[in-house]
Amino acid sequence: MRTQVGIIGAGPAGLLLSRLLALRGIDSVVLENRSREYVEARIRAGILEQNTVDVLTEAGMGERLHREGLEHRGVYLQYPGVRHQLDFPELCGRRVWVYGQTEVVKDLVAAQLAGGPPLLFDVSDVAIEDVDSDSPRIRFTDADGTAQVLECDVVAGTDGFHGPSRAVVAEGTGQQLWERTYPYAWLGILADAAPATDELIYAWHPDGFALYSMRSPSVSRLYLQVDPSERIEDWSDDRIWEGLATRFALDGWEISTGAITEKSILPMRSFVSAPMRRGRLFLAGDAAHIVPPTGAKGLNLAVADVVLLSRALVRLLQDKESDLADAYSDTALARVWRATHFSWWMTSMLHTTGDPFDAQLQLSQLRRVCSSEAAARELAENYTGLPF
Amino acid sequence: MRTQVGIIGAGPAGLLLSRLLALRGIDSVVLENRSREYVEARIRAGILEQNTVDVLTEAGMGERLHREGLEHRGVYLQYPGVRHQLDFPELCGRRVWVYGQTEVVKDLVAAQLAGGPPLLFDVSDVAIEDVDSDSPRIRFTDADGTAQVLECDVVAGTDGFHGPSRAVVAEGTGQQLWERTYPYAWLGILADAAPATDELIYAWHPDGFALYSMRSPSVSRLYLQVDPSERIEDWSDDRIWEGLATRFALDGWEISTGAITEKSILPMRSFVSAPMRRGRLFLAGDAAHIVPPTGAKGLNLAVADVVLLSRALVRLLQDKESDLADAYSDTALARVWRATHFSWWMTSMLHTTGDPFDAQLQLSQLRRVCSSEAAARELAENYTGLPF
Repeated sequence: MRTQVGIIGAGPAGLLLSRLLALRGIDSVVLENRSREYVEARIRAGILEQNTVDVLTEAGMGERLHREGLEHRGVYLQYPGVRHQLDFPELCGRRVWVYGQTEVVKDLVAAQLAGGPPLLFDVSDVAIEDVDSDSPRIRFTDADGTAQVLECDVVAGTDGFHGPSRAVVAEGTGQQLWERTYPYAWLGILADAAPATDELIYAWHPDGFALYSMRSPSVSRLYLQVDPSERIEDWSDDRIWEGLATRFALDGWEISTGAITEKSILPMRSFVSAPMRRGRLFLAGDAAHIVPPTGAKGLNLAVADVVLLSRALVRLLQDKESDLADAYSDTALARVWRATHFSWWMTSMLHTTGDPFDAQLQLSQLRRVCSSEAAARELAENYTGLPF
Repeated sequence: MRTQVGIIGAGPAGLLLSRLLALRGIDSVVLENRSREYVEARIRAGILEQNTVDVLTEAGMGERLHREGLEHRGVYLQYPGVRHQLDFPELCGRRVWVYGQTEVVKDLVAAQLAGGPPLLFDVSDVAIEDVDSDSPRIRFTDADGTAQVLECDVVAGTDGFHGPSRAVVAEGTGQQLWERTYPYAWLGILADAAPATDELIYAWHPDGFALYSMRSPSVSRLYLQVDPSERIEDWSDDRIWEGLATRFALDGWEISTGAITEKSILPMRSFVSAPMRRGRLFLAGDAAHIVPPTGAKGLNLAVADVVLLSRALVRLLQDKESDLADAYSDTALARVWRATHFSWWMTSMLHTTGDPFDAQLQLSQLRRVCSSEAAARELAENYTGLPF
């Protein structure tokens, strides 16, 4: 087999890259080690930045998004006694959409299988070779158990934190890693309950952070800050609802409950690796960086990487100019660090640590964001996504 | 002896309170356990907020300040390769003045001794009594060794972190304390050297933070972040100038050196105690709160307390209304926590910790403040002082 761009990983980054390249006349093949069912069922982020919606729409992926997605003008910040709405269009002229990453992936998979570039699920034994040459290749075993070789001009590693691509970059470069593991986790649930709020609520409470989110007009997505050592088995549905009701409590307002259809505990980590390129192998998305979920930057950062990378590859493979490819890693990392800082900041402002001084700093910061135009706009600009 | 307001401590807070009260026809006596020479020689902060300058000017203390003080439009933020000027008037319509706290104290002492309320230096054995009644008193020994009793309507504790007032508040209230000791200190020098910069430079460097400040057109005040365990004896003048030259290095710019006339190592701490009142005893300034020096909030916060307190005492003693006195602690603490958060934020952004992830967060934050109007304005509004 031969293609121009071999793409490892059929998450939103790999699928969108394949589509953006196809729209510019560049061939690719996407290899995914999981099944289609698995990929389409993974529950992940749910907030799309203005930029992300624009990119998906321009890529012809906006039809269902605009029909089913929920357009949000802002978020609520809550602390005891106060629930304050930040109005993003007023603050910075941009907004966000609620549309699950799962849905984005379904749309991209459907488009890919309906006449798009090849997308192979259930591959195994992926190995990336000769990335320092102009003709790298990917060896893998296909779903039928047959060993295959994919000859490429470029390999894109969109294979997430646990995929093989990052290690290949590390071998050939003075790769640097930065990491922070946070002393808290999120217990997340999906519930068949109409959201009791029109927009997300980020709530600070002495018991810990809570986030009220949603996936549709009838499905709520809710999170509780818990200790990373907590076991999901110890959290009955009643205990979860009780915790949520306490942390979101506000006079005259009530949470809406319903059957919990999914629950899990998510660790929180910041991770950045640099460079995001070695020779003809380029990393994008979670393969190069992880942010904690507060602020919803993970998916949006992957889309931003892929937009940059698609432009760089069009220029490299069609114009035979390497300037954008050479600039890719530094350009992408500037945005990665902005989002990493913002995610860390949101996380640090909202998660209780047990230290009373930290709690007062957090409350002071929250009061400031809820009373100062400059502070509110700084949050709004980062949350809705800085322009490309 | 009898007075309306007995003031313990002749720092800027106590002296200014006495003056503001005198201007509204309220008597006071200021007691200070140090000598005049000591009080007038203490080297402290040097940046006055717009508010502070306005208050001093309205109190008739602006003559020398406006003649000798240096009006600054902003500050420089520096990180390797970049020195960026923030223009405060452009960002928020306010500015700051460079005028040492030592000079403010000299001006206030001179005014006090030239026909102002009594100011007694070198007192000892200060004890505050009956603050839960309407007629508290202060027992002390005067400079001649004579035991005295000062009968008052109100006692103001402006006696700093180590003074006796805070403990008296603690005894009678459910006093809460919040504290943070930072893992770094400032090595500060005064040097007979014309400043090589027109405005303060806050510099982030892999070796640690450095601050370029000044006291006059011929005196520089410079600081280096050092470990709190460092001993000043281990820092020769040459070593200090070398460290400063390294941290402030920028192409085409040179530091100016001169004789070092003072050097010391200052610990860095955040501290807040609440409430700031018990009965007829009111705390103001360092007696109730300490901020680290980054951001220059200490003196300005003391002035803000005193403005609030003087209004509350005028209303209490002249109008016989206790509303402002009752609100004093909460009102003051809102501003205290804003300044405490801002000082912590400036400190955290600029001081290296040895953690490479922290360093990248700091650089990302600095790049953001140097490129975003919202982020720059958030710094400018806090630095120049929020309106009363």
